[in-house]
Amino acid sequence: MNERLQFYYAQDTCSLASHVALEDAEALYDLHRLSIEQGEHNSGSYLEINPKGRVPALVTPSGVLTETPAILVYISQLFPDAQLAPVGDPYQFARLQEFNSFMASTLHVAHAHRMRGHRWVDDEAAIEAMQRKVPVTVAAAYSHIEDFYLDGPFVLGQHYSVADPYLFTFAQWMEPDGVDPLQFPKVAEHREMMAQRPTVRRALEAEAA
Amino acid sequence: MNERLQFYYAQDTCSLASHVALEDAEALYDLHRLSIEQGEHNSGSYLEINPKGRVPALVTPSGVLTETPAILVYISQLFPDAQLAPVGDPYQFARLQEFNSFMASTLHVAHAHRMRGHRWVDDEAAIEAMQRKVPVTVAAAYSHIEDFYLDGPFVLGQHYSVADPYLFTFAQWMEPDGVDPLQFPKVAEHREMMAQRPTVRRALEAEAA
Ligand SMILES: N[C@@H](CCC(=O)N[C@@H](CS)C(=O)NCC(=O)O)C(=O)O
Ligand SMILES: N[C@@H](CCC(=O)N[C@@H](CS)C(=O)NCC(=O)O)C(=O)O
Repeated sequence: MNERLQFYYAQDTCSLASHVALEDAEALYDLHRLSIEQGEHNSGSYLEINPKGRVPALVTPSGVLTETPAILVYISQLFPDAQLAPVGDPYQFARLQEFNSFMASTLHVAHAHRMRGHRWVDDEAAIEAMQRKVPVTVAAAYSHIEDFYLDGPFVLGQHYSVADPYLFTFAQWMEPDGVDPLQFPKVAEHREMMAQRPTVRRALEAEAA
Repeated sequence: MNERLQFYYAQDTCSLASHVALEDAEALYDLHRLSIEQGEHNSGSYLEINPKGRVPALVTPSGVLTETPAILVYISQLFPDAQLAPVGDPYQFARLQEFNSFMASTLHVAHAHRMRGHRWVDDEAAIEAMQRKVPVTVAAAYSHIEDFYLDGPFVLGQHYSVADPYLFTFAQWMEPDGVDPLQFPKVAEHREMMAQRPTVRRALEAEAA
């Protein structure tokens, strides 16, 4: 089995969070780009890796991992020197999982009702009804992040963690989601700071290449 | 600060998963029941604990925790003797997080479109369109669990973990979600086995009391 990590991603998707975490960890990995437009995430060879047909997926020496919060926790634990999670403190570690879980089950889901409404309904009128509410539901999630999660400068306060690239990934889409970043100054400041980080730039450049 | 854990739940909700895990861990905790019908989860005193107005919430000596996957990981780490998570193996631990994350972001979300459609749309016709697709999306999630996640007899194979009460909690609702358990024999068998477990029975009895 290949000992290098194999990372499957698509540009402009939630897979950026895990990609940045791999850069933060200084992991050795190979990048595999999938085109969602061309349906490569639903091709036979990718479905053998992730039968759910979604990105991201990380092929590790022990087996495949999917689901962003799980990939992020794995990277944190595999590369302890990078200090990407407060692994020694059960409460702080659980708080990190709480944030990541909120991202996956609330903010990501709210956002997905804009572009992937067909997951949950079949008719056009209902898809449009969903899209109309996206600015409200996405803003409600940011409002919670602004008021209760983002301690600043990083999500967990003074310490950078895998929660930061996860938030940044979604914060890039505030405007297309119909949310005004000026309403969420801490999130907006976090986004600007993150956009300058070398690991974020490297991941974005690799995805654009 | 109170050293006993304080657990906030509502009957017939996802909070059962964490409740069973507390029983499995033989934790010392106080139960606080909220009535969703009476809107107690949106009352001022509960919003001070969880501003999201959702159950479950666990008040720990270090602070509050919300989001089921985070509460489950915390209980596993706080009570290592109960062996509720493969904490020593980063890959197996991440696989557990993958399952729990899939539950929170896919199965729970699919299910929630039946009873909480107003989260994502405002008009009645769209809420009905959502409800029509619930049997399809919930079945798709169980199909994935049956084929790829549930090793049997437990989710992680030979070892019981916090993933088991999480699956059981949702599997109770297969019929009202419009899904036939006969189509998912491994999930159905898991559900029967779990229903017999003393910790599950104790949690269900306490919630019904
Ligand atoms: N819960 C998963 C969601 C993964 C997911 O939905 N990825 C999207 C991109 S952000 C995708 O692959 N979409 C393709 C599709 O839905 O066909 C996670 O957090 O990793
Ligand atoms: N992502 C959260 C979801 C919590 C959640 O939505 N809980 C439901 C019960 S299953 C609730 O409190 N609903 C009340 C409401 O939506 O008003 C978790 O996994 O804990």
